[in-house]
Amino acid sequence: MSVKWTSVLLLVLLNSFHSVSCGKVLVWPTEYSHWINMKTILDELAQRDHEVTVLVSSSSVFINAKKSPVIKFEVYLTSLTKDDVDDLLMDIIKKWIYESPKDSFWAYFSHMQENFRRYYDYIEKLCRDVVLNKELIKKLQASRFDVLLADGVSPCGELVAELLKIPFVYSLHLTPGHTVEKYSGGLPSPPSYVPVGFSELTDQMTFMERVKNMIYTLYFDFWFQACDLKKWDLFYSQVLGKPTTLLDTMKKAEIWLIQNYWDFKFPRPLLPNFHFVGGLHCKPAKPLPKEIEDFVQSSGKHGVVVFSLGSTVSNMPEDRANVIASALAQIPQKVIWRFDGKKPDSLGPNTQLYKWIPQNDLLGHPKTKAFITHGGANGVYEAIYHGIPMVGIPLFADQHENIALMKAKGAAVRLDFRTMSSTDLLNALKTVTDNPLYKENAMRLSRIQHDQPVKPLDRAVFWIEFVMRHKGAKHLRVAAHDLTWFQYHSLDVIGFLLACAATVIFIISKCCLFCWQKFAKRGKKKKQE
Amino acid sequence: MSVKWTSVLLLVLLNSFHSVSCGKVLVWPTEYSHWINMKTILDELAQRDHEVTVLVSSSSVFINAKKSPVIKFEVYLTSLTKDDVDDLLMDIIKKWIYESPKDSFWAYFSHMQENFRRYYDYIEKLCRDVVLNKELIKKLQASRFDVLLADGVSPCGELVAELLKIPFVYSLHLTPGHTVEKYSGGLPSPPSYVPVGFSELTDQMTFMERVKNMIYTLYFDFWFQACDLKKWDLFYSQVLGKPTTLLDTMKKAEIWLIQNYWDFKFPRPLLPNFHFVGGLHCKPAKPLPKEIEDFVQSSGKHGVVVFSLGSTVSNMPEDRANVIASALAQIPQKVIWRFDGKKPDSLGPNTQLYKWIPQNDLLGHPKTKAFITHGGANGVYEAIYHGIPMVGIPLFADQHENIALMKAKGAAVRLDFRTMSSTDLLNALKTVTDNPLYKENAMRLSRIQHDQPVKPLDRAVFWIEFVMRHKGAKHLRVAAHDLTWFQYHSLDVIGFLLACAATVIFIISKCCLFCWQKFAKRGKKKKQE
Repeated sequence: MSVKWTSVLLLVLLNSFHSVSCGKVLVWPTEYSHWINMKTILDELAQRDHEVTVLVSSSSVFINAKKSPVIKFEVYLTSLTKDDVDDLLMDIIKKWIYESPKDSFWAYFSHMQENFRRYYDYIEKLCRDVVLNKELIKKLQASRFDVLLADGVSPCGELVAELLKIPFVYSLHLTPGHTVEKYSGGLPSPPSYVPVGFSELTDQMTFMERVKNMIYTLYFDFWFQACDLKKWDLFYSQVLGKPTTLLDTMKKAEIWLIQNYWDFKFPRPLLPNFHFVGGLHCKPAKPLPKEIEDFVQSSGKHGVVVFSLGSTVSNMPEDRANVIASALAQIPQKVIWRFDGKKPDSLGPNTQLYKWIPQNDLLGHPKTKAFITHGGANGVYEAIYHGIPMVGIPLFADQHENIALMKAKGAAVRLDFRTMSSTDLLNALKTVTDNPLYKENAMRLSRIQHDQPVKPLDRAVFWIEFVMRHKGAKHLRVAAHDLTWFQYHSLDVIGFLLACAATVIFIISKCCLFCWQKFAKRGKKKKQE
Repeated sequence: MSVKWTSVLLLVLLNSFHSVSCGKVLVWPTEYSHWINMKTILDELAQRDHEVTVLVSSSSVFINAKKSPVIKFEVYLTSLTKDDVDDLLMDIIKKWIYESPKDSFWAYFSHMQENFRRYYDYIEKLCRDVVLNKELIKKLQASRFDVLLADGVSPCGELVAELLKIPFVYSLHLTPGHTVEKYSGGLPSPPSYVPVGFSELTDQMTFMERVKNMIYTLYFDFWFQACDLKKWDLFYSQVLGKPTTLLDTMKKAEIWLIQNYWDFKFPRPLLPNFHFVGGLHCKPAKPLPKEIEDFVQSSGKHGVVVFSLGSTVSNMPEDRANVIASALAQIPQKVIWRFDGKKPDSLGPNTQLYKWIPQNDLLGHPKTKAFITHGGANGVYEAIYHGIPMVGIPLFADQHENIALMKAKGAAVRLDFRTMSSTDLLNALKTVTDNPLYKENAMRLSRIQHDQPVKPLDRAVFWIEFVMRHKGAKHLRVAAHDLTWFQYHSLDVIGFLLACAATVIFIISKCCLFCWQKFAKRGKKKKQE
């Protein structure tokens, strides 16, 4: 009888743990590829009977266009128009691709900094339109959400969560210098073996590379502190009605879902509330549309090359398109190119242009031999998942870093978009298709990606549900968050111990001096006597 | 057709990932509770059709007595007898319990150090008997094992793995000052918020506690370096026929299975190849033997208290037994006491003595109200699993630390075995049974333990199988292992940058001085003119 009771109790307990019937999730998203990635999590949450509501501005360019039928959208009004946002984001991206200085890292970083500043100004506008909209906040409060899922690259999610008094979870791929992960998440990043984000270094650094990594670390730390943090701190303090800072608010995140894993990144220290769920959007290939399938099959034993520059860049200047097209015309493979510009004159008969391609299904096709990619994290992960070697032509944001990583892992050849010639591209394609090492390395990464105790998507959803079930995950939060920077580095303790040691040495030497003087005096007296 | 092919390929790929048919596992175990814990993993591996072989000495006290029918045992001869080992281990334990100094931490640690020294001398003897036994090593080599699972607390497993040229995995709970985890595993342990192992501190430290933690860190670091490491280094170099060290050999571990989790420990930085699988031996309660069940049921609404001092200590001096028995006689609960000594005179009618008890089944019984425990990690985890508050009477090894942690988490009251009175024990029992906070906290820890994406045992087995499938897990290994201590802390880089800065300042000031002198000279000349 008693044993039955235990079993019943245990079952009830376990059931109550492993389901949150109809949890309510509020979402603070980011445009473009970030949205594609996050939507995978949201669709899965909706599949599991949670009510998912996405806060989206009336000016959203991409999210509105790629809505999901199972997700609710709370559209808030903003003074910006769609054209404003499209112009701004496209201008930032174009400047990054075509105008960022190439000759010096510092000039490049400084240009990148300006891009970020413009982006954050835009996010701040959106944020004001949400948190100062009393009616909207009241409506959201009345909805009694269980958790907020925020894209960590765009501030404001944590502020909305604070206003609604609900726990929040971040989804994040990478920030320059790992500054957000470090200063908001408490993630340790020793510069001796953790190459900082955007440094394009590997974990096997020479002495001079470690010097470089240290300088980058200091640079990004300084940049981050010099960012308009004070403006955000003031804004957050005003909205919350108490003195606070952006970082202190971000530090309250229960869980960080980091969109990479050890097939993509180099292994590094992590924290119990950091879960590396990279590639969660990857899935087995579905059948291709008939037209594409026929084209693919027509490639024979040579197979196909898939080419896409991502969801934001579907066009390019004519000269670049011709350089690329003429290289593609010379390879034995058939090419499927996602391109929405004027058909290049040098386009070969082996190359087909498409405005949109089923990228994941193509990468999972057995005839696919290589992937020419801009190096967006989503695309790179699809290539890893299906074990396809890459030719990387990074354009902006973290793409240079992603391709540098794939190159270091022996699964990609890297080219420069602005300067590469047809021969460069041709050679790169020949290398990744003819040298079996690239395929082997891509397959090794694929095995790592597939062979995890729990699928990344299930892990991401598990931790969001965990936060809903337990109203947080405080047991995973390190105490580092409660320390100042000098306490964190034990500088006060080291100072105290050094002061103690100095005092002891001082007292001992004074005593010795005193004794010696007494002894010397006595000796003198004795001599005089 | 092609899509079918993809699916077939993917299935084959996935199947090949997720099963290692008949992998061969060699085991380097440790006696007593360590063996109980490891046996759970080995039984599970055997259940999954792996061939498990345990290297056990002819003098083993506990492992031989607690063999498993599904595991093979490779018994090697040693010059020690069972009595030698039993006497040695019991003498170490008794000295730790009854003779370790109480008045000063330093005297206690120094006493503990002597206990460890004696233990490691014994392990070294066993190790020599294995690795210098050429016939045994030849036999093991011929068996072509896929992986070696070693208890990290007793060196030698890594040496055997090196001789057999197979990857190895550690199972480990905790070492003093986290020294092994730090120096062999590369685990970062910032002293500002990670209380070092055996310090009995929490992660919420005052300034003086942080000073204490820093001093402990330095002390244990010094202790570890001052241990007879050189002796081991020489031994390992001789056996492997190349200059090497114990630490360098240990650093090659593919995976560290750490026997705790964030319900037991405070959150801290970890590494991708450290998997926290505490409580993997816990399981739902089975029905009790009829006699015990009848006794438990006779307790009525008051319920029962379970009392055990673990697998190594089943007896105690008469005066201590009487102090305990008279306290137990005064509580309204019935008491089940695992005790193998002379029946205490003060034993109450509510207390039943047993030479052995089904501890996990009792802790999972709905009538169990509290657990009096010595604080062994296995027992504490069973209490956590079933949500039972504890009265901790730590005796030796990590037990003081374990009980300090449970006390800090509000799930235990701590007593001192050598000095506690009947009233102390009575009050402690009243506190944990009458104050609902203790039960609530124990249940909170239980919820954390139950609510994980994968059960700890499955996670442990997954990573051992992973190492077998992929012949290692190099992608999880941080590059910190390839750095010297000053490189790890970037001291060479900092030194270089400071030297550069000093040179620049020197040159600038020299230039300024030169210009100033020139300017001054000219001025003087002009004046003279």
